Amino acid sequence: MTATLELLSAHAAFGGAQRFYRHASTEIGLPMKFSVYLPPKAVAGEKVPALVYLAGLTCTEETFMTKAGAQRLAAELGMALIAPDTSPRGADLPGESASWDFGVGAGFYLDATTRPWGLNWRMESYIVEELLPLLGHKLPIDMDRLGIFGHSMGGHGALTLALRHPGLFKSLSAFAPIANPSQCAWGRKAFTGYLGEDESAWAAHDASALMAAQESVPYPGGILVDQGLADKFLMEKQLLPEALEAACAQVGQPLTLRRQPGYDHGYYFIQTFIDDHLRHHARQLNPP
Amino acid sequence: MTATLELLSAHAAFGGAQRFYRHASTEIGLPMKFSVYLPPKAVAGEKVPALVYLAGLTCTEETFMTKAGAQRLAAELGMALIAPDTSPRGADLPGESASWDFGVGAGFYLDATTRPWGLNWRMESYIVEELLPLLGHKLPIDMDRLGIFGHSMGGHGALTLALRHPGLFKSLSAFAPIANPSQCAWGRKAFTGYLGEDESAWAAHDASALMAAQESVPYPGGILVDQGLADKFLMEKQLLPEALEAACAQVGQPLTLRRQPGYDHGYYFIQTFIDDHLRHHARQLNPP
Repeated sequence: MTATLELLSAHAAFGGAQRFYRHASTEIGLPMKFSVYLPPKAVAGEKVPALVYLAGLTCTEETFMTKAGAQRLAAELGMALIAPDTSPRGADLPGESASWDFGVGAGFYLDATTRPWGLNWRMESYIVEELLPLLGHKLPIDMDRLGIFGHSMGGHGALTLALRHPGLFKSLSAFAPIANPSQCAWGRKAFTGYLGEDESAWAAHDASALMAAQESVPYPGGILVDQGLADKFLMEKQLLPEALEAACAQVGQPLTLRRQPGYDHGYYFIQTFIDDHLRHHARQLNPP
Repeated sequence: MTATLELLSAHAAFGGAQRFYRHASTEIGLPMKFSVYLPPKAVAGEKVPALVYLAGLTCTEETFMTKAGAQRLAAELGMALIAPDTSPRGADLPGESASWDFGVGAGFYLDATTRPWGLNWRMESYIVEELLPLLGHKLPIDMDRLGIFGHSMGGHGALTLALRHPGLFKSLSAFAPIANPSQCAWGRKAFTGYLGEDESAWAAHDASALMAAQESVPYPGGILVDQGLADKFLMEKQLLPEALEAACAQVGQPLTLRRQPGYDHGYYFIQTFIDDHLRHHARQLNPP
């Protein structure tokens, strides 16, 4: 693989390295940015497991690394962190920045099939077919020990990419995911725009529908989901964790869905529970 | 004290409360914002010790709370965190936003004596005479157990406010402080603008000069300073930690100045060492 990674900045952090990169993406057809945290072990050259974090609406490749406070324990556990951007940028499509929940910053981690979005809005293929193989090639990351997690739209992304690519991610968790996008306003707007009005195409990108259709248990080690009970988007029925809960129960998928009283949708909520998520992944990626 | 605090937002975090406030400041003559983190003990009504954190150039009352990752250990240690803004905002003085190192976002934690700055740029009196008494009155904070720390311009602020107000702060630390502002470009620009061209007025706001003039040891429990060695502002001679080191040695003030290879001036550096600073303060504020 001869693709070039441009290192935009690098910062020492907890004995490891926090890096921000840009590269020319062939799947997206535009430059894409992403960030990586390498723990001390990886900086010393050892291959380490990695967690892919998918961020929510309006976020970038910086949000998680700046606000989640994940690097401290990632350094200790010897896990890398990878955060892609949330959409293509710079396509200059009509209306791409007209709303905060569609277009730029709102890629929903799928390949759009409609015009004009289908040309660039290919976040699923970008992450799975291009970014992860590239990082496996360029950085000391063990591609057989990948986990995935995310927040809100990125929780949807983590759940759906994990279920759509069996075996690729060995561990899975989410913070306040959009768990049943076919049934909420955010998801219906995104799916209509990116996949078209035929709702039969939507189930393949809906975590609850995907889970309900599983013929075996995809994550026998369990899935961890945290959901704040003071989250206004929960109250507005954008998240619908109960749909994921029902689907997991239906197929026998162990799910630890923790409803956290008083917590909202933001990064103080994520900071509070990030260590539990890293340990959840470490248990499955670093078997003794 | 009848002043009103307007709660702008509140977020559950690590079992405690992350809050953002605004109030009409009489010292500044304008509305001022600040943030407070209350650990679970304080939310339950117990008076707790508090650390005042002063941020650097261009920062706001949000920067530390969002990026430093301090709340996790503050919750565990039972310490509140208080972060003021870095300057008045909204005075609309000519040129107040013309540079990033003077005016808005660059109050240098002193009371300006020049025109037009002297009217509003009164950050020292604001913090010491107004904000802290107000918080002691309104929140479950033990005013006899205050510590202070800060970063860059805020490290200068922490050191100088601690030395100018003996006994107010029981513990002191800094990240990459502007340690000898009379002798660096940032400090000379700020002091000229806020205090005037007569350099004899500057020593009273220069941490190294203040320290060298001490007649007894102000912090017998020690001062902790971390300085990254890949910090470009260190290389540009803006920080001058060696001047503080010499002044401490001269008066017998114990100083732990840790030179950290590879670390730069940013919040990944602060995140990495924040726990050490909180424990440094806790040792002096929570005696067994």
